[in-house]
Amino acid sequence: MEKIVKQGLLYDFYGELLTEHQRNIFEDAVYNDMSLTEIADEYGISKQGVHDLIKRCNKILEDYEDKLHMIRRYESIREDVHELTRLSKNSEISGTDLSVQLDGIANKILEELS
Amino acid sequence: MEKIVKQGLLYDFYGELLTEHQRNIFEDAVYNDMSLTEIADEYGISKQGVHDLIKRCNKILEDYEDKLHMIRRYESIREDVHELTRLSKNSEISGTDLSVQLDGIANKILEELS
Repeated sequence: MEKIVKQGLLYDFYGELLTEHQRNIFEDAVYNDMSLTEIADEYGISKQGVHDLIKRCNKILEDYEDKLHMIRRYESIREDVHELTRLSKNSEISGTDLSVQLDGIANKILEELS
Repeated sequence: MEKIVKQGLLYDFYGELLTEHQRNIFEDAVYNDMSLTEIADEYGISKQGVHDLIKRCNKILEDYEDKLHMIRRYESIREDVHELTRLSKNSEISGTDLSVQLDGIANKILEELS
């Protein structure tokens, strides 16, 4: 997985467990695509300090995933739901009320995952 | 929800985030149904110490749920999966290959949730 995508996914799931200060800087780097120099200027800390903080955030988020596996579960279940949608679309029930009901369940699960 | 069930569920999801010492004592109290006196004797700490530790563990686990909502999501998705199973069983596809495939997806999601 591309590093920036993985960082975003980790942050989506576990970002709430970081401090507000960590979240602000991590978001500036990963979502707002700001450079270390820009972030350092904004918060009045050194470039090295920004670098270390982001590295530490990545480590914290990865440690949570290692223990809780929320992303791993999320990706497995999303795959199952896509299989459910494929079956609903490409089988004898395609176009029936039952197919609509199954799609509804699939969408509900996808919403609850995110 | 009964307190002991809720404690067990919180522990299932977030127990990995406690220290080993906290896990041992929490398991003795919640799963092994040991009394405060028995646990205090086993670990050579006071009854009050055991009581405080368990209370602190409950607080830690509840705080994780407040931030990550794994149990809330789990229960919603489990409900959706049960609805999927009901549809599969009580509709025109009951007994067909498609029904078997849908049940397979339902069981896979339930496994991945736990």
